[in-house]
Amino acid sequence: MSAGWVVVAGLGPGSESLVTPEVSAALAEATDVVGYIPYVARVASRPGLTLHPSDNRVELDRAAYALDLALRGRRVVVVSSGDPGVFAMASALFEALEAGPVAWRELDIRVLPGITAMLAAAARAGAPLGHDFCAINLSDNLKPWSVIERRLRLAAEADFAMAFYNPRSRARPEGFARVLTVLREACGEDRPILFARAVSTPEETLRIVPLGQASAEMADMRTVVIVGSSQTRVIERPGSPILYTPRSVLKDTA
Amino acid sequence: MSAGWVVVAGLGPGSESLVTPEVSAALAEATDVVGYIPYVARVASRPGLTLHPSDNRVELDRAAYALDLALRGRRVVVVSSGDPGVFAMASALFEALEAGPVAWRELDIRVLPGITAMLAAAARAGAPLGHDFCAINLSDNLKPWSVIERRLRLAAEADFAMAFYNPRSRARPEGFARVLTVLREACGEDRPILFARAVSTPEETLRIVPLGQASAEMADMRTVVIVGSSQTRVIERPGSPILYTPRSVLKDTA
Repeated sequence: MSAGWVVVAGLGPGSESLVTPEVSAALAEATDVVGYIPYVARVASRPGLTLHPSDNRVELDRAAYALDLALRGRRVVVVSSGDPGVFAMASALFEALEAGPVAWRELDIRVLPGITAMLAAAARAGAPLGHDFCAINLSDNLKPWSVIERRLRLAAEADFAMAFYNPRSRARPEGFARVLTVLREACGEDRPILFARAVSTPEETLRIVPLGQASAEMADMRTVVIVGSSQTRVIERPGSPILYTPRSVLKDTA
Repeated sequence: MSAGWVVVAGLGPGSESLVTPEVSAALAEATDVVGYIPYVARVASRPGLTLHPSDNRVELDRAAYALDLALRGRRVVVVSSGDPGVFAMASALFEALEAGPVAWRELDIRVLPGITAMLAAAARAGAPLGHDFCAINLSDNLKPWSVIERRLRLAAEADFAMAFYNPRSRARPEGFARVLTVLREACGEDRPILFARAVSTPEETLRIVPLGQASAEMADMRTVVIVGSSQTRVIERPGSPILYTPRSVLKDTA
């Protein structure tokens, strides 16, 4: 085994105060940082550290590049925003690993968790994910619309709160409007929906509306969206309201 | 408004290297720390800081106590393990807030996210939650068995990976065996299941088996359990295997 390693690290949603000490320590030991341009830009350059920013949509190439660097003895951190295991670089790295040369499998590979966007957004709004919930990636090219629609309807039937990543994409701009239509049918017009944009950054905005008032334009590429379950409540108070889901469902009302 | 505040903070799964700087900063400013005994024990005592450890199953009393302290001008951190918004103290605090005196609603209340157990476990095992997934709390007293069973079957039909918190409880020891029976029916004997115990602590253990070989005794109160989707894969290699779910489902096979 070479002395190189690959760490797939989550930088959290944006604020440096949400980067774990474990991730900071890995970055301090790294010789190379690989990742999507805006995430690599969050890493301070220093002597002995080579930054390798790359464009979006080249996850498999980036993963293979990181694994090759490690095989040559480099200490490589692949940076993701949020948590690398939630709709991010960790799965891409393992897809590349499984398809690649067997020598890669002997490498020291670790995934370091981070604060994922839905949990940062939930914390800012209250506790909408305090009872059973699901997380669905709406990014285009990952699955057919029929799979998304079925999952939405089943999640509503299960009465999960739902968190949506990548609600709007350039390649499928109409997709999120269709999602909202299905959600209104399945959950009703009064169900609260949270649009949380750029959480923990200076551009952070939060907006809670009933589904009947939601429109696709309320989300963009930096937004995570959370729809409550049938039990989710809004507490009005001075300043911003609180959105939360109680811990218990005492009766089976299906 | 008083100068007091309440922060509900996530300490992560156990290791100090997974506590965010934001949480550490809040603890450094606090006058009071409130929480379940083992979580308060993770906070170092210092002059000017009063620790208020309390027993399990008194979440609403604890929340009310914290809100009252803040109303009297204290700076209170309510500590949770993991993320406070995932099956933890944040929802309990807002339940107390909604039912309590209106003066509480004027308090400065913040939730600070943490690394939740399923994401720490997923990172250690690979990336089993790299595609759509759900999180279900199996703790007794929170919902009737019929609700749990329906959610399991719907989650399997949606082909979510599933993370289970509190798989075994003293009050319902047979419950997790029933969960495994439903999962075997819905997902088949070959589906991989991960038992991750005490992740990030010196007692950490990970075990990946096919559902057909899983038994309730493989989980205890410190275990988080993850069942893969139909797409989840195991990569064998020297040392421990990698469990991961690819990012894409290219065809609708329902």
